[in-house]
Formats: sequence, C-alpha cells, structure tokens
Amino acid sequence: MKIFVTSVRAIFIAMLSLALCQTAMAKESDPLPSWNDGPTKSAIIEFMDKATDEYSEQYVPLDERVATFDNDGTLWSEKPLYFQLLFALDRVAQLAKDHPQWPKTPPFSYVLNGETDKLSTQDILTIVEATHSGMSSDEFDKIVKDWISTAKHPTTGKPYTSMVFKPMLELMNYFRSHGFKTFIVSGGGNAFMRAWVSSTYNIPPEQVIGSRMAAEYQLIDGKPQITRLPELVVNNDKAMKPVEIYQAIGRRPVAAFGNSDGDLAMLQWTIAGEGPRLAMFVHHTDAKREWQYDRHSSVGKLDKGLDEAKAGGWLIADMKKDWKQIYPGDDK
Amino acid sequence: MKIFVTSVRAIFIAMLSLALCQTAMAKESDPLPSWNDGPTKSAIIEFMDKATDEYSEQYVPLDERVATFDNDGTLWSEKPLYFQLLFALDRVAQLAKDHPQWPKTPPFSYVLNGETDKLSTQDILTIVEATHSGMSSDEFDKIVKDWISTAKHPTTGKPYTSMVFKPMLELMNYFRSHGFKTFIVSGGGNAFMRAWVSSTYNIPPEQVIGSRMAAEYQLIDGKPQITRLPELVVNNDKAMKPVEIYQAIGRRPVAAFGNSDGDLAMLQWTIAGEGPRLAMFVHHTDAKREWQYDRHSSVGKLDKGLDEAKAGGWLIADMKKDWKQIYPGDDK
Repeated sequence: MKIFVTSVRAIFIAMLSLALCQTAMAKESDPLPSWNDGPTKSAIIEFMDKATDEYSEQYVPLDERVATFDNDGTLWSEKPLYFQLLFALDRVAQLAKDHPQWPKTPPFSYVLNGETDKLSTQDILTIVEATHSGMSSDEFDKIVKDWISTAKHPTTGKPYTSMVFKPMLELMNYFRSHGFKTFIVSGGGNAFMRAWVSSTYNIPPEQVIGSRMAAEYQLIDGKPQITRLPELVVNNDKAMKPVEIYQAIGRRPVAAFGNSDGDLAMLQWTIAGEGPRLAMFVHHTDAKREWQYDRHSSVGKLDKGLDEAKAGGWLIADMKKDWKQIYPGDDK
Repeated sequence: MKIFVTSVRAIFIAMLSLALCQTAMAKESDPLPSWNDGPTKSAIIEFMDKATDEYSEQYVPLDERVATFDNDGTLWSEKPLYFQLLFALDRVAQLAKDHPQWPKTPPFSYVLNGETDKLSTQDILTIVEATHSGMSSDEFDKIVKDWISTAKHPTTGKPYTSMVFKPMLELMNYFRSHGFKTFIVSGGGNAFMRAWVSSTYNIPPEQVIGSRMAAEYQLIDGKPQITRLPELVVNNDKAMKPVEIYQAIGRRPVAAFGNSDGDLAMLQWTIAGEGPRLAMFVHHTDAKREWQYDRHSSVGKLDKGLDEAKAGGWLIADMKKDWKQIYPGDDK
C-alpha cells in the first residue's frame, strides 16, 4: 500500500511539474519567430488568445476552428508566373516530341519558341487542359512529384518547395497547435497541389481545395482507374472560393489568409460571420528579398482587396516590415 | 536524488501497468458488440489486425487510412424512400401556401394529392431542386436541422436519426479508433447530410462528400452570403463516387462500405488498389427488423454488386444473420 501511495504521489508531482513546465514554455517561447514584433504579429496572437480562452466572449468552440489559406502568393511565391503554369510550360516542352504539329500550332508554338508573352488567358487554359489530362490519377501524381522534386525556379534557381514563406509555415503551425484545422483554398489544381503539400505544409490531401479538371471512372482491361479529362470544371478563384468552401467544408472559416483580389470574396465571407474572425492579406512589399507588387500586377493583383482591408481594419502582413525572414533557407 | 529515482521508477511501473492493462482490455472487450460472431465479423477484425500491425506485410501507414461509407441503406434505412426525398416531400407541403399554382401543377400536384407513385426520376429532381434552393446556406442548414429533429418516419414512427444502424456506428468507431479517417460518400446532398451527421455519426462536415446543388456567392445589402441555386451539379452516384473521392480526398480509400449498385464503382476502385483493401456490402435481408430487398428494389437495388461481391470474395454483411441489433433503440 505504501508503495502504491508513493507511486501515485510521484506521478502526480511529475505530471504537475510537466504541466507547469509546458505552460511556462508556451508563454516564453515565440510561436512566430520569423515575424517581427509589431501590430500585425500582436493582432494575430491577441486573436488566438481570445479565440482559445473559454472564458472569453470571443471563444471559438474546437469543432468550429477552421482556417483557410490561399496558396500562390500567400504560402509560396508566384512570380514571374504561377508555379503551376511553369510546370505546364515544362510539360509542353516535354510532350512536344509526341506532338510534331505543336511547333507550328499556337498556343503551343508560343511556348516552344520562347514567346510566352503572347499567351492569352484562353491560351493558358488550353495549355493547362492539354498538359494536365489524358493520364490516370496515379500517373499525374507521379508526374507532378517528379517535377517538383527536380525543377528549379527560373530566376532564383531554388527548388519550388523551398520558395514557401517561413512566416506562413509558422502561422499554420500556430493555428494547428491551437486546434484549428488548416485548409488550402487555392486557384491551383487540387491534384497538382496534393502531390506535394503534405510534406511541405503538413496539410493532408483532403484539406486541399483547388481548381478541378474533369475526371472519369473507367475500367481499363478490367482494372478500375480515374482518368483525367481536358476540361476545367471548377476555377477556384474569386467568388468561387467561398462557394467551394461551402461545398467542401460546409462551414464558414473563422480565419482566412490571401494575397490578391482573387481571395477577396473568401476574406469577405469569413469576416462577415458572427463571433471572432480574422482576415489577412499578405502584401508583397519586398523587392529585394521577394517581389514587390500589388495594384498593377498581372499575377496576384491586389487592388480592391487592399482598399477593403484598409477600410475594414483587416490585417495586412507587410512582407518587408513584418517578416524577419522570407524563405526557410534564407538563414543558412 | 533518491526521490527522483523513486518517482521515475514509479512512473515507469505505472505506465507499464497501464499499457498492459489496456492491451488486455483491448483483447477482451468486443469492439463490435452488435455483430454476431461469424465469418463477416472475423474478417473485419482480421483485416484491422493486419492493417495496423507494423510488422505485417498488410500494414497500412497511418496517413493512408481512409475509409468511405455510403449513407442511405448503409448507415441508415432508406425505405420506403430515401429519407432526403421524404424531407423534400414534406417541404412541398410546407411551401405550398406560397405557391398557389402547385396543387394543379405536376409534379407538385402529385405530392399534394398523395400520388407520389406517379413521380418519375425527372419529377423527383424537379422537386429536390425546387425545395432545396432559393435560400442562404445558413437558412437551409436551419431548415434541415428543424426537420430532422421533429419529423417522424412514416411507418416506424421513429425520428429518422434513430434509424441508423448500430452495427455500422460501431464499425465506424472501430475504424476511427484504429487511426482511420472516416468519410461519408453518398448520393444524398452534402448540405442536407452535414446538418446532422456530426452529432449522429461523429463525422465532421468536411468529411461528408455528397451530391451538390449549385451555389452562388452574393453580397446582399452589403452582407456576403452563399445562395443555393436550383440546379444539381454533381449527382454523387455510381461512377461519380470514385471521381468525387478523387476530387475531394485525393486518395483511394483502403476500405469502402455500401449497400447498392450505386456503390459498386466505389468498391471496385477501392479493392483494386495495392496492398490490403476491404470492400463490404450491407445486404438487406431482414424483413422483420428492417426491410428485405436487393435485386428488384426501386430504392437501393443490389444486383450486379451482389454478383461481383460474391465472385470477388468481398464481404457481405447479412443483416439478419450478422447483426445482433439493428437500431440503437432496439434494446430498450
């Protein structure tokens, strides 16, 4: 009996010490070390403190903690072109040997002749549809994985997955560690993103909501497969983002993060919900460490969104001022 | 120092005891108490033992553990009509006061005059589209919640959510307790199901994949809302089930459960994956405690699927033989 009491007491003391120690550590360690101290960082932490304090009026129940993140320009860079488009252009070069007519057929000829400035929006859609279809779901996954693990960015020479934003990785971790389920809600293709987001962002494939190509279930030689078809059926941009969040998640997010007018509807819908809400734009203000652009950029244009964020008091993460470090490798 | 060593030893012993105790309990307690002992139950448990034993060749890594469940006829009853259709018929009666022309306009007149046997598939679609649209996402959620908490089944008189299958609730729990993420993949509407599945099945809204009505993002008096539109854009049945699983989850399930030919493609695609797989049909064989039907039923027809399951050695849960209890309230 004495041994039992001693054991119980020892366990109790050990657990109490551990709990106290963890609390102390949580208070002392900085959850967002790549963020400079300032109003943006403070506002994020203040939001989280209230949202997770069950005695606060701003408390958010655990099963409502949904946070959505745009990808291009919000979690990784998007210049000179969306990285998925660079993948599509690489695919054109790779597939050209099987399409002898391409060097003379626009829009493929523009790509093969280095005239990508001639590409219209319709041309880009044609190229994406042609390069992202005609194979099984498993084959496409392998194609993207092969590309992303070997391709290098045209100006930085870095692998694309090393051009993710360290402050945003920390932010996603911070939200997850406070019980939030984190989702990608992006104009990028769902299958393109799923090939690499698990390992890069620690987000499982089913929490990735992207644009959709049509797909078909087929028995080929008696073997079931999903075949990708050359038709974009959901362009997950602008007003489609809240709609797709509704269709896929079924709930309004509590927090949403974007960087362009393409994210504005998602942020509007998020912030308009009852109770505590957080909406934030990443503002590309750092020409030296990343890129500087907003109202007049062809990629990631942030114009109306910037006005609405300022008017509504939403958060704006100023890359240059708020971010101590941009990419994970920058401190090496 | 002595105290420290004592504490550590005590903790170690306590943890060891707890671990041994849990192992013993796991072996002794039955995870599927509503299932009769027999080959179906044994096969399920054997599958799980191997899938979760890291020394087994049949081991499934934690992040691949995806199990998909059809809803109507698999997790709850579906006679005399799909419950969502009964909801739609109730809605017609309720909305009739605002539609004075309905008593003379088919297909609404059929419903209002008790001639539901006259309804064609197209009529049903017309009724679903008319009764499930024209309101905000929040309003629709409230309408379904109000209905499901008050409506009673026409023949049993039970609330619909008490007509779920206890053995399947146990099965979902069993899968979740072994690290599987459980998803509903149903022909039912995604928003209809999400209004009640969290509390009934312990499945969060984002793990519900259903048919989709079109929806639109709108600013109404400056307030953002999602408005439901009268157009079915995804009919999540038959060959669309594996396609929608691919679009929403991005991975092939390891285990899939259905009860009709509408689930056949999902089960085919699941079982055709590499490594250990489990496919099971619920076979409605119990005219006394539930309903008895398969090859010739208008609702939940199981014909080709039954042949393919038998030929392929898939599991078939025979309600009458395999299930000790059907509904949760049956033992009261």
